[in-house]
Amino acid sequence: MSESQTVAYLGPKASYTHQAAIENFPNCSLLPQTSIEDVFIAVQARTSAIGVVPFENSTNGPVFFTLDLFADRHRRFPDIKVCGEAFVDVHHCLLGRIRSAPVDGNLATLRSSTSSPSTSGTTTPTAYIPLPKKPLTKPLHNISHVRKLYSHPQAWGQCNAFLSTYLRQTERQDCSSTSRAADIVSIDSNAEGEEAAIACELAAKVYSLDILARGIEDERGNRTRFLILRHSDSDDTNLDTKALAHIPNAAVFKTLVSFTVAHTSPGALADSLGVFGKYGLNLTSISSRPSGMAAWHYIFFVEVLGTTSDKKEGKGAIDAALRDLDKVASSWRCLGSWEVKEEGMEVVERPTNP
Amino acid sequence: MSESQTVAYLGPKASYTHQAAIENFPNCSLLPQTSIEDVFIAVQARTSAIGVVPFENSTNGPVFFTLDLFADRHRRFPDIKVCGEAFVDVHHCLLGRIRSAPVDGNLATLRSSTSSPSTSGTTTPTAYIPLPKKPLTKPLHNISHVRKLYSHPQAWGQCNAFLSTYLRQTERQDCSSTSRAADIVSIDSNAEGEEAAIACELAAKVYSLDILARGIEDERGNRTRFLILRHSDSDDTNLDTKALAHIPNAAVFKTLVSFTVAHTSPGALADSLGVFGKYGLNLTSISSRPSGMAAWHYIFFVEVLGTTSDKKEGKGAIDAALRDLDKVASSWRCLGSWEVKEEGMEVVERPTNP
Repeated sequence: MSESQTVAYLGPKASYTHQAAIENFPNCSLLPQTSIEDVFIAVQARTSAIGVVPFENSTNGPVFFTLDLFADRHRRFPDIKVCGEAFVDVHHCLLGRIRSAPVDGNLATLRSSTSSPSTSGTTTPTAYIPLPKKPLTKPLHNISHVRKLYSHPQAWGQCNAFLSTYLRQTERQDCSSTSRAADIVSIDSNAEGEEAAIACELAAKVYSLDILARGIEDERGNRTRFLILRHSDSDDTNLDTKALAHIPNAAVFKTLVSFTVAHTSPGALADSLGVFGKYGLNLTSISSRPSGMAAWHYIFFVEVLGTTSDKKEGKGAIDAALRDLDKVASSWRCLGSWEVKEEGMEVVERPTNP
Repeated sequence: MSESQTVAYLGPKASYTHQAAIENFPNCSLLPQTSIEDVFIAVQARTSAIGVVPFENSTNGPVFFTLDLFADRHRRFPDIKVCGEAFVDVHHCLLGRIRSAPVDGNLATLRSSTSSPSTSGTTTPTAYIPLPKKPLTKPLHNISHVRKLYSHPQAWGQCNAFLSTYLRQTERQDCSSTSRAADIVSIDSNAEGEEAAIACELAAKVYSLDILARGIEDERGNRTRFLILRHSDSDDTNLDTKALAHIPNAAVFKTLVSFTVAHTSPGALADSLGVFGKYGLNLTSISSRPSGMAAWHYIFFVEVLGTTSDKKEGKGAIDAALRDLDKVASSWRCLGSWEVKEEGMEVVERPTNP
């Protein structure tokens, strides 16, 4: 395999991004990177043909680290293009060490029985939280010995109900990824097993940890969308992947566009958004991040249904919209078009509260 | 002073929100709250007449905790209205303990002199970071003894250049607020003073800490915008505050509106944004958060120039737009109108890199 067929992904091994990379590039050489920035660097420098980065979580929203890199404030990534997307179901587990303990009901010998997780399972309704969210699962083992949690910041927000029910007062330590969290816990020298990580089931295997609870996320439909990056000069056709395969005729495409508007002209934002509607283009998302150019100045990201290469059927609507955008925006950039892969996506209703 | 003249703010004492509350409600009784949620609860329950919450930082963008409370997914805050805004300049300090040490250049006795902060001050250019951001300031004292940092998550992003230059490998612990971080460090039992907090200068006074570095933020124009909340049934006119004073004729108003659109209709987002343009209303911001109703489903927040009460001059343009919004959005809510207080706001250019 040539060096150009390597895939850089946000590591370490057993990260959700790793899972996305395995599923979409099963025959490529996969190279874990320390940060999302390192994935961008590898693709820009062409040391990897492909990059895989997290973009959006169905519960927590956009991944701002990734948006900030697309904002490209220092023009370090001029040739990065999005060429595909991938989805991974996120099922968080609590990973740590099963505490050898009497299982005859004497958990109280470990700690006060009132704090035993197996006696709880609901949060307390109050006048202002009449319907607190109930966790979808219970611990598989006693977890009263867990004193410190490690995970990626996004994971705390995705496991609120479980954490606030079973690990309410437990100290939390942010890590650069969920698998890094598992790695740290696996080398915990504390024989008491007081440290635990929130990570995927794959991480339990890779880092030899016990699964203390499975599926602790708040929403069963919790999924992360990943974007697949390549260098603008590269050629997709050499790549052995299902992620970039186009289904003729049935295909739906999306295009990611960033733009900034004049700080002093509030009308410019509405005008910029208006160019897409003028050509009948549907927006599927809007995000914004501080541009870094001035206080209160933002860079906007929109996803639009359609593709820049669609010269026949779509009558070049995106190209026309971008020409108009050039007249009203201070700056803009087309970050790539790709085929939508949301075939497995469904509207997932929240579980009804009792 | 009556109970209804109390102001709930995100505490503890010496938080930036406290500073905003002091400046705008100098004659009211100020009540620190543990979380932004508690401020919403106090105003909804009318235990406080006014709430002050952070909304947006000029470097880091929106405060998602606040947006998520405005999203009001469980209809706990139906009567919360925004009635004003306030700005506070954010100057972060590194607070801790000055280490009694020889000041004759023998800092090397504390640690290798190569890691002494006073010998550094620039980050290293590389092929991919040709212009790394330089910190705007240097430590006032030796900080090589600092082993652990405490602060609010937003502060890390606002002090990147200083931290990556002087405290690159130092462990970080998230806290609920910058002043809580100072509080923790002040009770650090470690006589070595290995813990330090990023917080405001006021916190040094309140928690009896030394200022190890001053103005460590990346951008000199770093400001936070706060929103002032009241109950929809309350009466502004009883309040002794400059924050809600209206300047006749010269006043500019903003209105905050949230809305959701049908998940299955990508055109609905453009249509919803279009209603404001139809009535000549300028959008000054757009933010979005997962709605919590379904995967990939968002609630959008827009700020629009104008006020719902402007029946004469503005010809009720906002009311008309909201009537149209009702036809294209799945749900919407007007979260209040207030007078813009940005008179001190200027476009602040980044310092030029060398």
